[in-house]
Amino acid sequence: MSVGKRVGIVGATGAVGRELMELLESRNFPVEELRLLASPRSVGKKLPFRGESIEVREARAEEFEGLDFLFLSAGGDRSKEMAPLAAKAGAVVIDNSSAFRMDENVPLVLPEVNPEALAGHQGIIANPNCSTAITLMGVAPLHQRFGLKRMMCSTYQAVSGAGATGITELEAGVRAWSEGKEVEPSTFPHPIAFNLIPHVDKFLDSGYTKEEVKMRNESRKILSLPGLPVSCTCVRVPVFRAHAISVFAEFEQEVDVAAARAAIAAFEGAELIDSPENCEYPMPLNYSSKVACGVGRIRKDEALENGLAFWIVGDQLWKGAALNALQIAEHMI
Amino acid sequence: MSVGKRVGIVGATGAVGRELMELLESRNFPVEELRLLASPRSVGKKLPFRGESIEVREARAEEFEGLDFLFLSAGGDRSKEMAPLAAKAGAVVIDNSSAFRMDENVPLVLPEVNPEALAGHQGIIANPNCSTAITLMGVAPLHQRFGLKRMMCSTYQAVSGAGATGITELEAGVRAWSEGKEVEPSTFPHPIAFNLIPHVDKFLDSGYTKEEVKMRNESRKILSLPGLPVSCTCVRVPVFRAHAISVFAEFEQEVDVAAARAAIAAFEGAELIDSPENCEYPMPLNYSSKVACGVGRIRKDEALENGLAFWIVGDQLWKGAALNALQIAEHMI
Repeated sequence: MSVGKRVGIVGATGAVGRELMELLESRNFPVEELRLLASPRSVGKKLPFRGESIEVREARAEEFEGLDFLFLSAGGDRSKEMAPLAAKAGAVVIDNSSAFRMDENVPLVLPEVNPEALAGHQGIIANPNCSTAITLMGVAPLHQRFGLKRMMCSTYQAVSGAGATGITELEAGVRAWSEGKEVEPSTFPHPIAFNLIPHVDKFLDSGYTKEEVKMRNESRKILSLPGLPVSCTCVRVPVFRAHAISVFAEFEQEVDVAAARAAIAAFEGAELIDSPENCEYPMPLNYSSKVACGVGRIRKDEALENGLAFWIVGDQLWKGAALNALQIAEHMI
Repeated sequence: MSVGKRVGIVGATGAVGRELMELLESRNFPVEELRLLASPRSVGKKLPFRGESIEVREARAEEFEGLDFLFLSAGGDRSKEMAPLAAKAGAVVIDNSSAFRMDENVPLVLPEVNPEALAGHQGIIANPNCSTAITLMGVAPLHQRFGLKRMMCSTYQAVSGAGATGITELEAGVRAWSEGKEVEPSTFPHPIAFNLIPHVDKFLDSGYTKEEVKMRNESRKILSLPGLPVSCTCVRVPVFRAHAISVFAEFEQEVDVAAARAAIAAFEGAELIDSPENCEYPMPLNYSSKVACGVGRIRKDEALENGLAFWIVGDQLWKGAALNALQIAEHMI
């Protein structure tokens, strides 16, 4: 058993923060002390952890003193402000925002894919974007086997990616529908129940969204393929908490479906679910609150040389956020 | 005003048949007589048309006598049996099944894309697969402008594609969820509410589904590009009646987003909805019971040479089925 760690969570009351607390407990992370930190409006709330009740305190620099790990999940602006303070106070900061992901002094880590990047950290470690993390759990093993040359991804992203209010907005939309009513969207730009919104995060002048650009840039950094051609279309779908990605990928070497399946099956954190004859393939309902990401529908791509088409599903709140952050910490102790 | 036509519908009580009756009425198709035909179990049902009530009769060869047009929408086996009989009786058969689509003696027609194919018909005309029809309403104008070289499509397919029971199964699944219950799927292989099923139509040995192969083969035939490289992943989503498709396409000529937008805007049956700055892009909720297909999110593809990434949405029951069938008949009179 490791020595107990003093752990802080900023954004403890959010969707990711709550999953993180659950995972710290269920995965027996050696927590000696847990400090739950949030914005002033959540101060005083009490959250359960290991049968006790912990009161939320305000996220201020003094609270970072003595921490071994600080998990930051309160948006990019809060991260930019707090991460350097916490790192200076001696904590290892694992940041769930996009604030530091492309900073060359900050490792961006999927522990199963590029754990070696942790070696050079300077106190701040970035947790990848949710769609990127889940996509790479299927792409990385195939890259290791065949050498990735380019990829095109279309996402099917769950509402949990927009936080707790994303989940309640889908619930409210569906309940309103069942009563013959409508609800005004607030978290999403349009109603999400029974709809598809091809718009995740803000639009850039290029016509791509920030989410689509994150998938490109973060994939390049994590895979150490700085010039990798990547195109993405990111779409919000009426699913609660697991993202799916349809990938068309071209490789350097000749591909083989059996070898691709074997590479997925052998990769830690990925699961091969690929028996079409039995209607078996990964789906969001089977990949909610699940550690592994599922990969299936693997076949030769018919439009790319040495191409594979496949389908990946993973829990947005877990591998896409809280779980991967915790796995980074687990990897470091 | 054209001379009145004697029209038959086989599959009148199905989802597509009902839309067809509505469209015959709302588009003022010159119907002199309407014969509603179906399997024995639907005989005797009465359906409204132009303020009258028409009784459903059994679909038998005698009923085809004297018809100008017969719309067949009762599955491939019924089509194979009935289409030749009706054509022999002198009707122009417009068949919504996959039975004749790849038959070289049968035109496969999107009237806005390849109306010239109608010229050589021998009594049977095939209506394209729903995903193919909607995809090509966005792809064809870009092909005409830049010359299509290859394309990769990921679909987001509504439950209406599985017929009336697909719609009721999504409704039932969502109502059960709101009551804290579950329902056994029967139309789909898995629950569809809040889920994604990467499986539309049957699997083939290649690992592709029939739906994915239809999109490839029918696109090649309609666009007269017999060797076109096409890869598709087809996914059922919890949306009622509009399909969406995320496309990555490579072209022969240099592409330009402004020219691409102009080509879409100028194409009959397509609508350009592409103002990201105003959160405007096509979505299923806006493209249900709509004649045009919407195209948006047009931008340069970052992984293909001369590539464009874009997003198409269209009504599965209309452009994907009943409307296109009727447009074929309209084109012929």
